[in-house]
Amino acid sequence: MSNWIKGLVVVSALSFSIPSSGGNADGGLLKKAMQIFGPLPQVMVSEKNPVTPEKVELGRILFYETRISVDRTVSCSKCHPIGLYAADGLRKAIGNHCKINPRNSPTLFNAAGQISAHWIGNRTDVEDQARQSVIGPPSFGMPSYEAVERRLREIKGYRDLFKKAFPEADDPVKVDNFAKAVGAFERTLVTPSPFDAFLTGRKEALNEEEKRGLKTFIEVGCDMCHSGASVGGQMYQKFGLMEPYWKYTRSEEIDEGRYTVTKKEMDKYVFKVPMLRNVAKTSPYFHDGSVDTLEDAERIMAKIQLGKDLTKSQLEDIASFLKSLTGRIPEDALRIPLLPSME
Amino acid sequence: MSNWIKGLVVVSALSFSIPSSGGNADGGLLKKAMQIFGPLPQVMVSEKNPVTPEKVELGRILFYETRISVDRTVSCSKCHPIGLYAADGLRKAIGNHCKINPRNSPTLFNAAGQISAHWIGNRTDVEDQARQSVIGPPSFGMPSYEAVERRLREIKGYRDLFKKAFPEADDPVKVDNFAKAVGAFERTLVTPSPFDAFLTGRKEALNEEEKRGLKTFIEVGCDMCHSGASVGGQMYQKFGLMEPYWKYTRSEEIDEGRYTVTKKEMDKYVFKVPMLRNVAKTSPYFHDGSVDTLEDAERIMAKIQLGKDLTKSQLEDIASFLKSLTGRIPEDALRIPLLPSME
Repeated sequence: MSNWIKGLVVVSALSFSIPSSGGNADGGLLKKAMQIFGPLPQVMVSEKNPVTPEKVELGRILFYETRISVDRTVSCSKCHPIGLYAADGLRKAIGNHCKINPRNSPTLFNAAGQISAHWIGNRTDVEDQARQSVIGPPSFGMPSYEAVERRLREIKGYRDLFKKAFPEADDPVKVDNFAKAVGAFERTLVTPSPFDAFLTGRKEALNEEEKRGLKTFIEVGCDMCHSGASVGGQMYQKFGLMEPYWKYTRSEEIDEGRYTVTKKEMDKYVFKVPMLRNVAKTSPYFHDGSVDTLEDAERIMAKIQLGKDLTKSQLEDIASFLKSLTGRIPEDALRIPLLPSME
Repeated sequence: MSNWIKGLVVVSALSFSIPSSGGNADGGLLKKAMQIFGPLPQVMVSEKNPVTPEKVELGRILFYETRISVDRTVSCSKCHPIGLYAADGLRKAIGNHCKINPRNSPTLFNAAGQISAHWIGNRTDVEDQARQSVIGPPSFGMPSYEAVERRLREIKGYRDLFKKAFPEADDPVKVDNFAKAVGAFERTLVTPSPFDAFLTGRKEALNEEEKRGLKTFIEVGCDMCHSGASVGGQMYQKFGLMEPYWKYTRSEEIDEGRYTVTKKEMDKYVFKVPMLRNVAKTSPYFHDGSVDTLEDAERIMAKIQLGKDLTKSQLEDIASFLKSLTGRIPEDALRIPLLPSME
């Protein structure tokens, strides 16, 4: 076990206690929560890819564009349908020609706020994820970036839309700009929830059960990994610190996680800690979608990450807190754009 | 050749001439067009399935519901994505487990105004189409209606939504009600266009080229089959009255059309005449999507249905008229609904 993972386990054993009820207690809980989490920003900004209305508009259109995949059936929306909270409800995502992807589709909501994209961190950011998807063999499956650009150019209406979004480019219809536009759209997919209202000082924004759940979440030690505004997505961690995960998830295959990227022994079974924003809406759970319900997921996590057996009421309280992370989807993301036609 | 088909050919040979320009000519064209076509209604009503806001709302949600298909990837929206004008841009629709459907996905816009659904008329109406889709082996692929109902009941949120839409039913979560709700939603998918403005007397709603195209469309005889408010969808007709269609479309397979339903010799190669509403937005064309461009489709139709070789300028004018049939999608259909979650 690497030192930093050991360190986390030690901190877990020392986890503090929060007074259990009353106005002052709420104040203590709020203060603690403010330190650990933090409300979502309005837009997940990026220096490398400034968010402009024109880029977002183009990205929102491209998000639904199936005609640039090898079999003309895959768009970003296939694995991240907005109406299902930008996840697809499947154990593992299904791409072109019904190819099964190696892992579960995570939601795109708030995803731009993470340290990287994908479960094993092999995409640096949402732009990189969009760019690599188009040539990903199990996703869009195109043979090259040039082939994608040819498809984009065949759809006449894109010329003007790319020009508007990238006015300084001589030849704007490029995969890099596809990635920037889709990335800019994704950077607006921020879903503020009752928990954000709580974090900005409105103690009544969470009910008693939700607050109890938040308190339990912190006391048990879930927050050591699931922290930051996205309640996760800020670090990598071994899945199954105490015991092999597959004994509990009953996973059909053993996934070596980040090891497949780095080939370092310390990265075996290490995954990016998933965000918990909207988690109640995005079953099934874990990198392989092997677990269907929120309470089962909580129970397994407490057991194999923290060595703890949670009680039924602890599981229920934490589930209530997690449901308070279900957010409001931005109006613009709920509008279907019309795609440019071929002629 | 059956008598009614022969009759149509005779009428075609007699087709009238319309004066070619000037205000009075427009009046003549308008009058003629009013007799042949007719503006779209606001909603495609049905006595069997009255359209209520609650049914439409439920239908709009169910339209995106993938979890009731055998592999949890197929929804109505898969083959009829709203952003691509409720068609999918593929030659033939692709359903569960990547099964290829026998024919091209027609647009759902204005589809409820036709004599039947599907290319070969083997679905009586949009409700019947929705109902049969869920057990259609190449579409949703479920083994039985009961299996679909079990899936619907697993998604807790549907209970209340079905109850609201069908308040008099004791047990509303039924495939019949799924079909009625989806049908009611589809009955609102009406797309008024500049042509409708013209048909209500606003002569300036079409420009000169579009009017020339409309005039040519009628003079050539296209309107004998493509008539009514949907500019088609009102009768069956043999595809290839003059010559076998596959000689021109270069179709990979020979589809016997309505013969496969009725087993009557007179129905060989007979298909429902497709609507031309939004045709410029819904390539590729014909029952097998074998032809990519509008002008190629026009050229082939004139040749093999009417025995006529159209000039380049006739083809361009008709294309202009057909583009005036591209309509405005109702605002409500451009909103993505949030799907109820499993818990």
